[in-house]
Amino acid sequence: MPVGTNATVKAMSSDEMKELGAEIILSNTYHLYLRPGHDVIKEVGGLHEFMKWDGPVLTDSGGFQVFSLSPLRKIKDDGVEFRSHIDGSLHFLTAELVMEIQGALGSDIAMIFDECTPYPATREYALDSLKLTTKWAEKCLKAVNNGQALFGIVQGGMYRDLRKQSAEELIEMDFNGYALGGLSVGEPKELMYEMINYTTPLLPLNKPRYLMGIGDLLDVLEAVSAGIDMFDCVMPTRNARNGTLFTSQGRISIKREEFKKDTGPLDPECECYTCRNFSRSYLRHMFMSREILSMRLNTMHNLHFFMDFFRRMRAAIGRGEFEQFRKEQTVILKKNFNEG
Amino acid sequence: MPVGTNATVKAMSSDEMKELGAEIILSNTYHLYLRPGHDVIKEVGGLHEFMKWDGPVLTDSGGFQVFSLSPLRKIKDDGVEFRSHIDGSLHFLTAELVMEIQGALGSDIAMIFDECTPYPATREYALDSLKLTTKWAEKCLKAVNNGQALFGIVQGGMYRDLRKQSAEELIEMDFNGYALGGLSVGEPKELMYEMINYTTPLLPLNKPRYLMGIGDLLDVLEAVSAGIDMFDCVMPTRNARNGTLFTSQGRISIKREEFKKDTGPLDPECECYTCRNFSRSYLRHMFMSREILSMRLNTMHNLHFFMDFFRRMRAAIGRGEFEQFRKEQTVILKKNFNEG
Repeated sequence: MPVGTNATVKAMSSDEMKELGAEIILSNTYHLYLRPGHDVIKEVGGLHEFMKWDGPVLTDSGGFQVFSLSPLRKIKDDGVEFRSHIDGSLHFLTAELVMEIQGALGSDIAMIFDECTPYPATREYALDSLKLTTKWAEKCLKAVNNGQALFGIVQGGMYRDLRKQSAEELIEMDFNGYALGGLSVGEPKELMYEMINYTTPLLPLNKPRYLMGIGDLLDVLEAVSAGIDMFDCVMPTRNARNGTLFTSQGRISIKREEFKKDTGPLDPECECYTCRNFSRSYLRHMFMSREILSMRLNTMHNLHFFMDFFRRMRAAIGRGEFEQFRKEQTVILKKNFNEG
Repeated sequence: MPVGTNATVKAMSSDEMKELGAEIILSNTYHLYLRPGHDVIKEVGGLHEFMKWDGPVLTDSGGFQVFSLSPLRKIKDDGVEFRSHIDGSLHFLTAELVMEIQGALGSDIAMIFDECTPYPATREYALDSLKLTTKWAEKCLKAVNNGQALFGIVQGGMYRDLRKQSAEELIEMDFNGYALGGLSVGEPKELMYEMINYTTPLLPLNKPRYLMGIGDLLDVLEAVSAGIDMFDCVMPTRNARNGTLFTSQGRISIKREEFKKDTGPLDPECECYTCRNFSRSYLRHMFMSREILSMRLNTMHNLHFFMDFFRRMRAAIGRGEFEQFRKEQTVILKKNFNEG
């Protein structure tokens, strides 16, 4: 899922997202609650009508943004008090309010309000935190909006038994899908992989399983292998705006001097609009001149690269050839991106 | 002519410019000389290929930018020494170099290197300045590039007789077109109108007559009445990025609180992509969130507004009804934009 934080995938139009083949977009409850306000979006006809996107939208619950963006955060039994990162104003998010906001936005998939357990956390903290998430999950379920799917979020820090406890408690409540939260929050990669591989198989096979906030493609391969179905990440779009581009030849920083007079396409193997039309020389010039078109063309390319990877991965799964795909891609990704 | 300073009309793609009906784009010699360098653009196949724009391009000569952007400017007999506004590096532009740059860019229409006479200027300064422009015009003509049209630029400050002298000297040299320069540099509007109305009829009827850097639509009507054929201005694009939008109901600042829940289009009489698809509420939210899409949608609308005005004006001229068009539009513009 490409990320459209403020009701727009940064630099892109909804038409372009459709042309790129995006099938669903993630948007942020926290951001839209603060600006323009969910009442505004409700009154103008909901998020789809607002941003003119007729495909599905998943909204996160704000639990992670309260954790990562707010300059102040006080977790209480019935919610979280925090200050807006925009204007410093004080707010109090509860499970009920988060469901009200997501209902007003009218997303197709809502997420429960959770506490994103930080890393590191003591076992005691992680247990208390997961209990809070379970309690809020029950409240969210009671407040579920008509016609809107609701996903649970498994917490439990880096403790297997707590992950299991969280998963079991949520499964008992019967959500439409299940997400893994509280990962990629600073823990070593091996620990993240361990949690993914341990927790994912605990979740129902007949419901979507969603790994939140992860987009590194080696991580994606590991997670898909464990059974994960859904991802979201700002990696392609944020990197694009910073001039870092993903290509079949590896990661490219478009500002590099060597591209100054390079008439070739960014990625000779790519069929995106950017690669079909513009030279590396032009892309470098646009970036160096801080032109808006730089962000547009770069974002278009990176999203195409990621979506193409996912399309090919899904096709391989369909053919029963995921393991082969994984092996091949792991070699390519390690060689090209020096990741993992 | 929409302005594409750095080889891109800010926020737009060349495809979108074509869809908007743009027939020619202006690009800036000064900017492209400094970055990425005319040698780069020449080597990668010229400006059209570089920015993937197959319509005509006019390049200005840099005379105005040296005047308006450089933190230091020393006018000498054979050129201008100045510091780059980007990195402070020292440069020396001459008539010959300006022609070499424009040749390397491969624009369809080049402009002579001129000194943009400041306002106010003594008669003595304006005379010396115009003599310099005439001298450089001769040098440019000698260095004219194969297949590239070259326009002269009439200077002379706010002195009728000097404007006449400049026009006559340039006409004698037989350029492909003639521009009025050194206007809208701080002088009262009446004085600008006087210079336009006095100078334009001195220029050959069978050659394009171009008023540089003016885009206020009341000024445009005055200038067209005097016989001007061509304009360029950053007004539609720059205002768009600042959230100021031109509509059939007047100038609108999209950030206004009253648009928060306004589901109507920006301009109900407009048929542009922005007005066909998005609400004022969304446009306000995009602007308040400083989203790139805000600049895109706003620019698209403002360019459409200006181009539509020019299309209707040309049609009126074609029907022999310009005076009627001018009267009607003057009433509308004065009412809506409080200009003039």
